[in-house]
Amino acid sequence: MTDITEMLIRRGYLWQSFEIYGGMAGFVDYGPLGNGLRRNLEKLWREYFVINERAVEIDTPTVGIEEVFVASGHVSSFTDVAIECEKCGKIYRADHYIKEKLGIETEETIDFISEVLSAYDVRCECGGRFKEPENFNLMFSTRIGPGRGKNGYLRPETAQGIFIDFKRLADYFRDKLPFGVCQIGRAYRNEISPRQGVIRLREFNQAELEYFVHPRDKKHPGFERYRDFQIPLVDKMDEEHNISLGKAVEKGIIAHELLAYFIGRTAEFLIDAGLKREKLRFRQHRDDERAHYAVDCWDAEAHTSYGWIEVVGIADRGDYDLTRHTEYSREDLSIFVPYEEPVKVKVRRFSPKMGLIGPKFKEKSKAIAKAVEEYNGKISDGKIIVRVDGEEYEIENSLFEVVEEEEFVYGERVVPHVIEPSFGLDRITYAILEHSFDTDVVDGEERRVLRLKRWMAPVQVAVLPLLSREPFTSKADEITLKLKRVGIFTEKDDSGSIGRRYRRYDEIGTPFCITVDHQTFEDSTVTIRDRDTTRQIRVKEGDLENVLKELLNSERDIFEFGMPFK
Amino acid sequence: MTDITEMLIRRGYLWQSFEIYGGMAGFVDYGPLGNGLRRNLEKLWREYFVINERAVEIDTPTVGIEEVFVASGHVSSFTDVAIECEKCGKIYRADHYIKEKLGIETEETIDFISEVLSAYDVRCECGGRFKEPENFNLMFSTRIGPGRGKNGYLRPETAQGIFIDFKRLADYFRDKLPFGVCQIGRAYRNEISPRQGVIRLREFNQAELEYFVHPRDKKHPGFERYRDFQIPLVDKMDEEHNISLGKAVEKGIIAHELLAYFIGRTAEFLIDAGLKREKLRFRQHRDDERAHYAVDCWDAEAHTSYGWIEVVGIADRGDYDLTRHTEYSREDLSIFVPYEEPVKVKVRRFSPKMGLIGPKFKEKSKAIAKAVEEYNGKISDGKIIVRVDGEEYEIENSLFEVVEEEEFVYGERVVPHVIEPSFGLDRITYAILEHSFDTDVVDGEERRVLRLKRWMAPVQVAVLPLLSREPFTSKADEITLKLKRVGIFTEKDDSGSIGRRYRRYDEIGTPFCITVDHQTFEDSTVTIRDRDTTRQIRVKEGDLENVLKELLNSERDIFEFGMPFK
Repeated sequence: MTDITEMLIRRGYLWQSFEIYGGMAGFVDYGPLGNGLRRNLEKLWREYFVINERAVEIDTPTVGIEEVFVASGHVSSFTDVAIECEKCGKIYRADHYIKEKLGIETEETIDFISEVLSAYDVRCECGGRFKEPENFNLMFSTRIGPGRGKNGYLRPETAQGIFIDFKRLADYFRDKLPFGVCQIGRAYRNEISPRQGVIRLREFNQAELEYFVHPRDKKHPGFERYRDFQIPLVDKMDEEHNISLGKAVEKGIIAHELLAYFIGRTAEFLIDAGLKREKLRFRQHRDDERAHYAVDCWDAEAHTSYGWIEVVGIADRGDYDLTRHTEYSREDLSIFVPYEEPVKVKVRRFSPKMGLIGPKFKEKSKAIAKAVEEYNGKISDGKIIVRVDGEEYEIENSLFEVVEEEEFVYGERVVPHVIEPSFGLDRITYAILEHSFDTDVVDGEERRVLRLKRWMAPVQVAVLPLLSREPFTSKADEITLKLKRVGIFTEKDDSGSIGRRYRRYDEIGTPFCITVDHQTFEDSTVTIRDRDTTRQIRVKEGDLENVLKELLNSERDIFEFGMPFK
Repeated sequence: MTDITEMLIRRGYLWQSFEIYGGMAGFVDYGPLGNGLRRNLEKLWREYFVINERAVEIDTPTVGIEEVFVASGHVSSFTDVAIECEKCGKIYRADHYIKEKLGIETEETIDFISEVLSAYDVRCECGGRFKEPENFNLMFSTRIGPGRGKNGYLRPETAQGIFIDFKRLADYFRDKLPFGVCQIGRAYRNEISPRQGVIRLREFNQAELEYFVHPRDKKHPGFERYRDFQIPLVDKMDEEHNISLGKAVEKGIIAHELLAYFIGRTAEFLIDAGLKREKLRFRQHRDDERAHYAVDCWDAEAHTSYGWIEVVGIADRGDYDLTRHTEYSREDLSIFVPYEEPVKVKVRRFSPKMGLIGPKFKEKSKAIAKAVEEYNGKISDGKIIVRVDGEEYEIENSLFEVVEEEEFVYGERVVPHVIEPSFGLDRITYAILEHSFDTDVVDGEERRVLRLKRWMAPVQVAVLPLLSREPFTSKADEITLKLKRVGIFTEKDDSGSIGRRYRRYDEIGTPFCITVDHQTFEDSTVTIRDRDTTRQIRVKEGDLENVLKELLNSERDIFEFGMPFK
C-alpha cells in the first residue's frame, strides 16, 4: 500500500466498500473527510458551471426505462469485449488483457480481438484457452415492478435525463438559446474486471453540463476570458501544442470557440479545485476512439501515479441525442428560432387546373389535385410524379400552373447542438488528493502534509485548547461554535499534545489551527497557525471570523493579518 | 389535475419522469426549481443533524452486494404481498387493493390475505379471480460483473452503508460514544403498483442519521431545549396527547429522552423548512406495524391532500443491525468502553486437581482439566458437568477447588444502540410545496403565491429592470451578478410587464423582487418588494446586499429596512 493510500484510509477519506464482507472491486466509500472534499468540489463546480452560466440544475432518476437507452444507443453500443477462460472460467476485459500481456492497443471489435487471440496464442493466466470473445453490455440491468416487470437500467451517464426533458427545459428557458442544464449525481458502468481502485469504478459521481446552442452559433460571450489562456493541447494525431486557446481555434486544432471556452473554463476550475497546472493537459480523442455520439471530444487529463488519466470529457455531441429521441419518442425536440427580421422568400406553388384534372382522373381527381398543390419537387420531361393512395400518377405540365409568390418567413425550427463538459468527480477528488500530498521537514522531523486549497479542505479550521481542561476547553468550544455558525467547517480537538494535534491536522489538510493558550485569557487573543508554512500569528478573538473568512477565500499570507508569533 | 400540480409542472418544480416515452409510475424528475428547493432542504438538514451534532456525513454506494442485505434481513423480510389476476395478469399490492375495495386493514401475511380474498370473494377490476398471493421482495436486484456475475441490490435505505462501516467510523471517533453518522442520497423500493405521484416513489431521496449511543445512556445534552416543546403525539393505542416532550418521557409515552430529543429537533427542523406546525404530528408505530429491526418508532406526519403522510421515521433500532452484521461478517462490531474508574471484581475460578483427574480420565484428562478451568456455571448436587468432544462428563467437587480472586476490570465491550431519524426528502419537499401554496387577492385580482420560507426559496431574489432596454438592463445585470457573488440565488428577468413578472415570481415563491426604475439613475436606489405583503421599500443600491442577507435569514418586516414606497 502506498503512503497516500494508507493515509486516505486511516484518516477517513476513502474506504473499500463492503470491507467487512470481503470488499467488491469497482466501489468506494467516501469517509467523513472524502465526502467533505467531494461536496466542496460539487459546490465549486456549481459556481463555475451553473450559477455563472445561463444554466440550471435538475435531478432525474438513476434507474431508467429501456426505451431511453435504446434511443440513446447504449443498449446496442455501450459494450466492451469480454473473454472467458475455458478452463478456470475467469472473465477479462479483452483490450485491457491484451494490452497487459502483449503491450498492444486493440480495436474493441469481436473480429479483431478474435484474430489477436489466435495469432498470438493468448492464454489465461491459468494457462487455459479463451472461448470466443463476446460483447458485454456495461449497463447494470434490473426489472421495474412485480412479475415479469419492465426492463430497466442504471443510467450510464446523467445526460440522458436531461435530453428527454428537453421540451420542458426549453419551455423553462422560453425557447431562447443558448442554455445549459446540468446534473450532479450517480452514474454506473458494470465494468468487466476493474482493478484500479477509485480510478475505475462501477458506481461513480458525475457532474455533467449539457449546453444547448444554435448549430450555427458555437460561440460563448465569455470566450475573451480564455483567448490568451494556455494549457498543453495534445491533438488527435498525438501532437502537443503549447499555444493559446485563441490560436488553437484559429489554426483549426480546436473545432470552435465554444469548445475552446469550455476547455479554458475547465482548466481554470480544475486548478482552482487543487490540481497542479503542470500535471494537467487536454487531449483530443482520436477518430477511432470517439464515442458513437461525439463530433469532437477533448479530455482533460491529470497526471497521477496511474499515469495520465481522463478526469473530464468535453464533447460536441452535435444533434445526435435530440435527433435520436425525436425519432424514438415521436416528440418534436426542436426549437423555433425567430429571425431578427422576417425574411421575404420566393415560393413556387403548383396550382392544379381542376377543369382538366377532374375529367381525367374522375373520383381520384380531388386527391390528385391536393397532391399537386403539396408537391415541392422538380418538373422533369415536362411532367411531375405524385403519389396518391400508394400509387404513382404522372401529371403533365398542361394540367397545372406554376405560380411564383413572395412570402415572409419569421424563423425556423432548429434542433440545437449540445456541447457537453462531463466531469468524473471521483477521479478529480482522487487526483486532488495525490497532487496535494506532500512531505517536508519541520523541526528536524519529516512531516506529512496535504496541501489542499483552503476553500476545498473538508476541515477548514481546528480549534485546539493548549490544555485539555477548563477554561481552555470551554473557550475552544465557544470559538468552534461561533465559526460553525458562519459556515466555516470547524472541529475542536483536545486529545494529545499540541504538536501531535498539529501533525494530525497537517495530514488531513486543515489549512488553519487556532490555539487557545494562557495568553488568550490575558488579552483575548488566539494564535492562527498556517498549515503550509507552520508560521503563526496572534489575532484578537473578535477579529477571528473576518480574518479566517479572508484567508479561506484567498491564498493570502497570514502575516498580512496579524503579528508573527513565536 | 389540481391547481398546485399544474403549477408545479408548468413552473419547473416537478415533472413526470420519462414523459416523452409515456412515463413510468414511481419516478419523478426535479426541474430547476424543485431541485433548488430540495438542495436547500438538504443544506438545512445538514445544519440541524450534522454540523450541530457530534456527527459526520459519509457517502457509500447505492448498489450493494447480497451479503449486506441478507445480514440486514432485507432479503427475507423486505416484502409486500402481491396478488395477480388469473385473467388479465394485472398485479396489485394486496393490502392496498383490499383496503380500497373493502375498506379494511389487513395483516401483510400470505395466509391472512388468502383468507380475505376467499372470504369476501375479492375480484380483479376486470372481474377475474386472483392466483394465490405471493411475497414480492421490494429490492431492485441486479448483477455485478460479467457472466453469471454476483447478486446485487439497490439499497432500500442508506443506513446499511453506515452500519457496515461501523469499525472505521468508531475509529474515526476514537471509540467515544455517542456519535452520529449520516448519509444523504438515493434509496430504492420496487413498489408493486405505486399510484400516488411523488408520495410513493420507487426511487427516492433519504437523509438518515444513525446516532450510536451507549445502551444504558439514551440521553442527549441538547434535550433541555425541547423539554417544554409541545407537538401533538399520537401513541400506539391511537390516543393523542397534547403535552410537552418532557412530560411524555416522564409518563412513559416516549421511551427515553434521546427519542424525545430527536422528535423535538425534527419538529423544529420541519417547521423551519416550511411545514405548517398545525399540520404536523408525531405518531407512534403500533406493535404490529413496526419494522423487523425497531424497538420503538415514531413517525412525523404531515397533513396533505393525500391525508396524513409519514415524512420522517424516528426509530430506536437497538443493537439489531450491528449484532446481525457481526454475526454474518464475523467482525467484532463492539466498542470498548472504559469505566471512569477501574472496577475491582471478585472472580471465581475452578482449579482442577490434576493428581485426581489424571488417573480417572486417562487420555481425556488434559481436555477435561481445561474444560473445568473454563467452566463458569453453577455447582449442583456437588458436581459440575463439562462437555469435551461432544460428550458430557460429571466432575465431582472433590476433583477441583473453587478459588475466589479479585481483579481489576477497566471497562467493557459494548454493542452500541442506534437511534435513527430517517427523512423522506421527496415527501417533505412536496409537503412544503402544498403547505406554502396559497391564493389571495391583490388589486382586485386573484393571485397565486407560494409562501416558502425565505431561506428555502430556490430563487431568492429576482432583479427586474422596469423597462427592457438600456440602461435598465445593464444595471439589472450588474446587481444580479453582485448578489450571486455573495451566494444569493438571483435571477434577472426583463420579459413582460412588471406586474406580470411580479406574479410570476410570486407563483414560484421568490421572496423579494428588486426593481430598477427611473429613480435608480437619479439617486442610486432600488425598490425591494415583499412577496407576502406586496409592499415595497426603497433602499440604497449599496445597502442591498446587507439588507437582503438580513431579510433572507429571518422573517423580519421589510419596513424595518427602508422607507415605504408607493
